[in-house]
Amino acid sequence: MSLFIAGTIALDTIETPFGKKENILGGSAVHAGVSASFFTDVSICGIIGKDFPKEHLDFLRSRDIDLSGIITHEGNTFCWSGFYEYDMNHAHTRDTKLNVLLDFDPVLKKEHRESEFVFLANLDPEIQLKIIDQLEKPRFIAADTMDFWINSKRAKLHEVVKKVDFILLNEGEIRMFMETPNIPLAAGRLLKLGAKGVIVKKGEHGALLFTKEDHFSAPSYPQEVFRDPTGAGDSFAGGFMGYLAKTKDLSFNNIKKAVILGSSMASFNIEDFSLDRMKTLSKSEILERFNAFKEFSEFEALLVKEL
Amino acid sequence: MSLFIAGTIALDTIETPFGKKENILGGSAVHAGVSASFFTDVSICGIIGKDFPKEHLDFLRSRDIDLSGIITHEGNTFCWSGFYEYDMNHAHTRDTKLNVLLDFDPVLKKEHRESEFVFLANLDPEIQLKIIDQLEKPRFIAADTMDFWINSKRAKLHEVVKKVDFILLNEGEIRMFMETPNIPLAAGRLLKLGAKGVIVKKGEHGALLFTKEDHFSAPSYPQEVFRDPTGAGDSFAGGFMGYLAKTKDLSFNNIKKAVILGSSMASFNIEDFSLDRMKTLSKSEILERFNAFKEFSEFEALLVKEL
Repeated sequence: MSLFIAGTIALDTIETPFGKKENILGGSAVHAGVSASFFTDVSICGIIGKDFPKEHLDFLRSRDIDLSGIITHEGNTFCWSGFYEYDMNHAHTRDTKLNVLLDFDPVLKKEHRESEFVFLANLDPEIQLKIIDQLEKPRFIAADTMDFWINSKRAKLHEVVKKVDFILLNEGEIRMFMETPNIPLAAGRLLKLGAKGVIVKKGEHGALLFTKEDHFSAPSYPQEVFRDPTGAGDSFAGGFMGYLAKTKDLSFNNIKKAVILGSSMASFNIEDFSLDRMKTLSKSEILERFNAFKEFSEFEALLVKEL
Repeated sequence: MSLFIAGTIALDTIETPFGKKENILGGSAVHAGVSASFFTDVSICGIIGKDFPKEHLDFLRSRDIDLSGIITHEGNTFCWSGFYEYDMNHAHTRDTKLNVLLDFDPVLKKEHRESEFVFLANLDPEIQLKIIDQLEKPRFIAADTMDFWINSKRAKLHEVVKKVDFILLNEGEIRMFMETPNIPLAAGRLLKLGAKGVIVKKGEHGALLFTKEDHFSAPSYPQEVFRDPTGAGDSFAGGFMGYLAKTKDLSFNNIKKAVILGSSMASFNIEDFSLDRMKTLSKSEILERFNAFKEFSEFEALLVKEL
């Protein structure tokens, strides 16, 4: 086992300008796990209800994902229903049914407690902290969150920031959490709070990486095929963490490559609803997209005599 | 004379969270011209009123800018008054006094008609077209515009797009003009309309360059010192066009460098009000910033065996 991911497993109902799909596979741990499974062995930790379709579990197994950390509980699976307007930048929630998520209190088995690479996908920060406390020899922990927890459990989220290596946020969330519209300033504040690295996911504007010493700006893929943004951030995190867990190389050079792979995986994920694009994706397509990112962000050095 | 720039010359009153300044030097031709003057010889074409302070003309002359295309007219100089809220992403107009701009009907002298590199800064597209018609041997024309003209003179703006090489827009403008929230799609539509290149200025999110064959994504500088965004887009255009006019190299590789220099100049411009930062800027600072852009956007290639 190489990457341990804890997060939500969901049945989503999603409407975008390109269609409406009901009760489709979703959730932060699922999107991150499937994305990461292209790079490394993955274990998912989450909770589902008795209603969860067997075909979804079969799909996750087909990606060689270890599902032994998934608890099946009386009741229904967590459901999120939302829609996107024409610009698809913001998710609008129609309905959230927490269902079995209310009973999620993960007790990790030995194999999972010994994980070195851990991604805490969007979850109640109190549960994220409980998971961190059970880890015996973590080497690299990254955590995601969302506006809801920033507003309702800010102090707990500060604790999470102190205890993980990298924190991943989208641009709206980091502005809200650090109370400044200036992203570099906000990232600096998170680093001061104790994070070793900050990744700002900006969707169509790419991603930014900040550490105390370094900065990296990743472009976005010029995506014309864009059907459903749900799970893009989690797919990013999955590609990012999957590659780090595979290579076990935490140099800044390698982390930059992981950010580009994360961006690549996110750009595939939005091409279709749910995990549908992931079902046909190949490693050669991933490599091709990584190289495209490189090609359209490279430029030559400027010589003194040219100025 | 190497770069010819037509646009507005203004006295701005600007309020940002960092202060309020009244009747300061501004205007699209001024910001673009001063920025370009770091790279090449520049001529500015515009109109001012009798009230225009001599010190501003002296400053432009100190940058070796040819002012023979500036008409002084009875009445007052064009005035824009606006403010920015805390996020500084959008300018809010308090008052616009067109004044002498209403009488701007440029008749170019021979030297200017023979310009090879031309930047049509934000102006009424009918005036932009009148200038294009007077050019005798243009080699590379770029034009900027704004939402006001997109709404009020869409057909004329289509004509401009057909007649210039590159069109520069910000992200809101290109979405509005091409009626789609998807920027790559919108850029594709502008290329179909006849533009050879499209540059999308995204402020804190960098800039995108689209041609029929190529794509380039430029990062933004992680700017913590950010006092006044006025003129950032024009400073970008000035750096971009100034470098192209200097090098006379229209290869995609060189155009990419010009985009990064444009981004560098914009990042300096926002550090202070009006043209104040430009008054102390040196070439070595520009080179240093260009190299910073290169450093934080570079990453290593991915090898097949790594996947």
